[in-house]
Order: sequence, then C-alpha cells, then structure tokens
Amino acid sequence: MSWLDLPAGTGFGLDNLPYGVFSDASGRRRTGVAIGDSVLDLAAATGDDVHATGSLNAFMARGPQAWADLRARLTEWLTDDAHRARVEPHLVPRSEVTLHLPVEVADYVDFYSSQHHAENLGRMFRPDSEPLTPNWKHLPIGYHGRAGTVALSGTPVVRPNGQRKAPTDDAPTFGPSQRLDIEAEVGFVVGTPSRLGTPVPVADVADHVFGVCLVNDWSARDIQSWEYVPLGPFLGKSFLTSVSPWVVPLAALEAARVAPVRDVPLLPYLDDTGRPWGLDLTLEVRLNGELVSCPPFGLMYWTPAQQLAHMTVNGASLRTGDLFASGTVSGPGRDQRGSFIELSWGGKEPLTLSDGSTRTFLEDGDVVTITATAPGSHGGRIALGEVTGRIEPAPAL
Amino acid sequence: MSWLDLPAGTGFGLDNLPYGVFSDASGRRRTGVAIGDSVLDLAAATGDDVHATGSLNAFMARGPQAWADLRARLTEWLTDDAHRARVEPHLVPRSEVTLHLPVEVADYVDFYSSQHHAENLGRMFRPDSEPLTPNWKHLPIGYHGRAGTVALSGTPVVRPNGQRKAPTDDAPTFGPSQRLDIEAEVGFVVGTPSRLGTPVPVADVADHVFGVCLVNDWSARDIQSWEYVPLGPFLGKSFLTSVSPWVVPLAALEAARVAPVRDVPLLPYLDDTGRPWGLDLTLEVRLNGELVSCPPFGLMYWTPAQQLAHMTVNGASLRTGDLFASGTVSGPGRDQRGSFIELSWGGKEPLTLSDGSTRTFLEDGDVVTITATAPGSHGGRIALGEVTGRIEPAPAL
Repeated sequence: MSWLDLPAGTGFGLDNLPYGVFSDASGRRRTGVAIGDSVLDLAAATGDDVHATGSLNAFMARGPQAWADLRARLTEWLTDDAHRARVEPHLVPRSEVTLHLPVEVADYVDFYSSQHHAENLGRMFRPDSEPLTPNWKHLPIGYHGRAGTVALSGTPVVRPNGQRKAPTDDAPTFGPSQRLDIEAEVGFVVGTPSRLGTPVPVADVADHVFGVCLVNDWSARDIQSWEYVPLGPFLGKSFLTSVSPWVVPLAALEAARVAPVRDVPLLPYLDDTGRPWGLDLTLEVRLNGELVSCPPFGLMYWTPAQQLAHMTVNGASLRTGDLFASGTVSGPGRDQRGSFIELSWGGKEPLTLSDGSTRTFLEDGDVVTITATAPGSHGGRIALGEVTGRIEPAPAL
Repeated sequence: MSWLDLPAGTGFGLDNLPYGVFSDASGRRRTGVAIGDSVLDLAAATGDDVHATGSLNAFMARGPQAWADLRARLTEWLTDDAHRARVEPHLVPRSEVTLHLPVEVADYVDFYSSQHHAENLGRMFRPDSEPLTPNWKHLPIGYHGRAGTVALSGTPVVRPNGQRKAPTDDAPTFGPSQRLDIEAEVGFVVGTPSRLGTPVPVADVADHVFGVCLVNDWSARDIQSWEYVPLGPFLGKSFLTSVSPWVVPLAALEAARVAPVRDVPLLPYLDDTGRPWGLDLTLEVRLNGELVSCPPFGLMYWTPAQQLAHMTVNGASLRTGDLFASGTVSGPGRDQRGSFIELSWGGKEPLTLSDGSTRTFLEDGDVVTITATAPGSHGGRIALGEVTGRIEPAPAL
C-alpha cells in the first residue's frame, strides 16, 4: 500500500495520519505527521509556513476543506512511488524527536458524559440521592476547566496541596492531597471558530472539530469534595490536565462511528438521529505498566457532536484551539472504570496489583499511562498515542 | 498640579491613570492612558512598541517594576511643565477614539466572595438548607468561566436560548431565557505569570495583579438553575461577560484599602493579617439610566489577594492576561444588591421604576450600566470607567 516499510500492527498507518508538533536538535518547532515509527516534517515537505508556527492552531483555523485537502495529498505522497524521492528525506525517526503541546489551548471544557461514571460518582458523593441528577439525561453536563494548565503528556504531576475536610472532621485541614486520582478521557480539538450569538448545529461537528486526543484530567478527590458545592470543581482539577501529543483527525475515525443507546427523548437541538457521532474507542489504563482498566468509549451517552451543539446553543462562540473533553470514560464492569475512585470504590475496595501490593489512590512515584485504539478504515486498528504522567511529591509547606 | 486643564470632579485625574487600548481613524490599535477627557497615546509618547501591540498583555508581562516606572514617568510628564510641549501633541480627545478589549484574556475565573450575595442566592436556590454552604467561610469559592466570550463594554447582549425546567415542570423546555440577569462585579487582571507547581503567597498580590476593571457577568438564571448541579454554572453564564475598557492600576487603589471583617479562623495560606486588600469601591448599577443599586465592594468577605493565593495554592500557574472576578457584589440593603434576582427576590418582589413600570428580570431593549468610584490618593474619588450592555432579542429558533 505504501512505499514505506510500516511495522506490522502499527497504530500509525495510512488510515491514521495524526498531527503533532515536534523539534529536533535544531530546536525549531514544526508540525509533523506520525507514520509508522517516523514523523513526516510538514514544514519541509509542504514548504508551507503554517506548519512552522509551533502549534497546530494556524493550520486548524483554515477549516475543513484545507484539512481534507492536506489529508488527501499526504495519502497520495505516502502511497504513490512517484513521490518517494521527494518525500522520504523529510521523514524523521520518531525516537529522535522531542514532542510538544500540539495545540495552543483557548478554552477548556470538561463534560461528564459517561452514565456509568456519573452513577458511580453520584453513589459515592451523594449517597442519599438518586445517583444521576434530574438533568443528566436531558443535557450533556459540562463545566469550564483551566486552559493554562493543560500540558503535554509526560509533564510531571506534582501532588497538589489544598484544603480538605471529611464529614467527620470539625474543621478543614491543609496539606497534600491524599486522594490523588486520574480521569481517563477523550478530548476534541476545535479548529474552525464560530461567531458570538450563532449556535453550531449538531450536524456540523465535522466542520468545526479538527481532531481527537487522549486526556488525563488529574483530580484530587479530597480537595474536590470539600470545594465543589455549589459552583463545581476548581482546585481539585486545575493543577494539571495532560493531553496526548498526537491529534488524530476526526476524518480518521469514520469507521469507529457508533450509535449510543438512550432512553429519554431529546430536545431538537440535541437530536442526532441519522449517523450519530458515538465512537468505538477502547481505552487502556496502565498503572506502573500493569493494565488496570479498559474503559469503552463506545458506551458514552452523549457524543462530541451533542456536546458541541450544547456548548454553543446559548450563543457562546468557539475559538480555534478550544478543547472539550468527554469526562471520565467508564463502563459497567469494574475493569472498565476510568478513575481510581471508581476502581477502588472510594478507597473502600483496594485494587490488588500483580506484585501483591494494593492501591486505592495514587502514590508518589506512580506512573499512569492511558492509550486507546479505534477501528481504522483499512480493517485494522488505529492508535491515539498515549498520555502519561508520573506523580511527584507535594511541595513542602 | 497638572498643566492639563482637568474637568472639575473628573474621576480620571493624576491619581488614577488607567490603561486601555484605543484606535482612531487610522484603525491602528495602541495603548492609551485616560487623563481627564483625553487619552495619552503611549505608543507615540514613549516610542515603545510594547504599546502598539493591540492589547496590554505585552506590557503587563514586564512585571511590577516596569509598571511602577511608567506610572512615575507619566506622573512627571503630566505635572511638570517642562514636558508639556513634547507630551501634549500625543493627547487625543476621548470622544474621538474607539476603545477595544484591553486584555487578551487567558483564563477567566469567577469567585463568589460577597457573603450577602451568597446568602441571598442560597436562600433562593436551596431554600431547605443553610444559606451558606459549610465551606463558604473557609475558602473563596470560585469556578472557571469562558474566556472566549469576555468582551468589551457595549457589546450587544443577545438573549440566550437554552434549556430550563422549573421544579413543577414535567420535562425541560427550550427557548429564550426568561430570567436574564446581571452580576455586578470587580475584575482583577494578572500581569506577571507564575510557574506551574509554585503557589503565589497572599502577600504577593501586587507583584502579579496589574489592575482592576468592572465586570458584568450576564447570567440566565433559568438556564443556570437547571444545569448547575453537580458541576456548576455553564451555559447560564458562558454567552457573554462584559468588562470595562479602562484597567485601573492596583497602585491607584492604595487609598481604598480596607480590612474585611471575618468571624472564622483562616488557614495560614489565606491569612492576610497586616494590611489586607479589601477595597472600598462603591458600585452603581443603572437600568435605562435610573440608579437601582449601590453595591459596596468594601464589605466583601474575601479579598483579591486571598483569591489569588487560593487559586494557585494547588500549584496552578498564572498567565499574563488571566482575569479573576470577585463574584456579584451585594450589601445588606435592598438597594445594595448586585443582581436582579436579588433586587426582585427571585422575581417575587418586582422593582418599581420611576416611570411607574415594574421589573423583575431584564427585558429586550434594556440597557444596564455599572460604574464605580474609589477614594483616590489626592483626596477625591477615582473612577473605574463603566461597563454597559443592551439586551437584544434571542435568535429565532
């Protein structure tokens, strides 16, 4: 298919072609496309300065026709032998490059769209109420997160200090979070902006969303549970959100589309009857190399198309670089839960690891890595890269 | 005092010198300083290109010594006759310029720091609970808002569509908000960034905060009350946040500093014993020109210094252009409330206006204008400019 010698089973085949930002020894940042174990230097291969700006934003802002045109050119260049001599010199081994945050993040929104996750959290945080709040099946609940602390995979995760108060404590105390957690999520990157006052219809998602990455929305559960009533999560989340380095074009996920199952009628602006944008991704969560969970993204109740329509229905505008994430992905099985608060049921049912040790929340030195694959259009599976981070001790007080 | 012929009682005297971004017929955007009825063109007067970048961000990023140095130079230029011939040609009548959003907003955080406001909202939104949540006096509650929809004063306020459901409704309905409201707030603009992982102490606020503006955080109460449990306000707020065009340097507010009264011991990181950063500003809210409220900012429970320390205590970093707002400013009197939901007590006690008409929430065509003054260092009062907006009808569905 390609003149490239692609490794067997690579998740970075011709049906993927994800975008990232890299530098080599020269230090200059360019946009690259991952193919097999290589990166194609787009600034050099295309001669287009838009790929030498240090982020994907300028290219993303050109809109869906430009994205489709470049994807078609790349496919031709990497398959047709006639282009080999010109293109091959611009391939760099992935092992030799440094990757950077691919997107200059404008606004960051985090949704809460897994029914299993929302029910699990509801049972733990509000044990005296119904697990789902009354609004949950009528709208994709979301909130704004801190865009300035969205960082590249691999950024050290410094355990946050903060206030926490258990219901049995007399007063809050201050210190390192004792319930540091992950949230395994899928993120969507906006390329095409929208006008203030003009909603984006559910059918237009592919005109605005450039691509998809993996997100770990690190969470300090003890800080969060004390602060979050009534205005939502703040310091329990804002210390760091990690994203994977490769942005997979939405166009690469056509074969992954599935229809969610829902049991409550939708208002027209959220109605996605036809070909909904559920996506059959399988996530894998590893703690210190050991697989602890396989969250199924295909079971999400709300799709990115609905999240986008909801986010803009009040007239709020989109900017190039907006990032919105799905919320923690959890399935019905214990080994499908996308957070340690669920995996350990609030710390009451510790996980036993293969070395016999147990774990509730994260300990200093722990490394958590999230990966994902999806059905590709050529029959195999494409990869979304990985988002990883190592827990470092809290700063001294 | 000044060789300038300043209008009597101007809020823009030598003790103010607020910064903004303006353009004239040429269309070029420059930084200006308001003085009396004029704007001093800083790009021309200083010859420094930092003032020709179209926002205050590049100058703000230089840090507190640069801010103090320029303020001292401006004071000398505008008082010493020796500078008059050189400086005077760079003064432009304020009536002849177009003002622009002064800051490229990075992250936007909204606090909830008025006890009277929080108690009023608690009584209305959660009538069966204590008006203040148990955390309220232990930490300044806040959440992230949408930075991309922070806009200049005067931007039309298009009534948002959205979902709402009253407790007595069987199912949510969709349509124009019927409870469109204001939130009269004070905003703080961050100039100096901070490092990820390094908290900013409460004593360092003046090293990071460049200045102060007025904020109207337009709110759709019916959308907000249906969506906000459990993750906080989202579409009820994200359609627009308006800010005043002039950023008053924190240094101009030294004479306005007051000590808040608090009745619960603070954790050390929030302890501001010494000279706290309460600020004795008086806000004025006008509906269609008629004064309806005078919210007293001096009664706020939490100060901007505590908000900054709290926002970063978990290691979250600051960026130049971060905006954090106080939350609605309300005092104990009915005529001191900073929102219509409070002024009309949830719509149950309509305001009677001078023409005999009544008002609960905002109607299409209404214009709301918020202004504020503070004690200046020369004995009079300085002005914070104004933030205004006119309600336009919701888009057709």
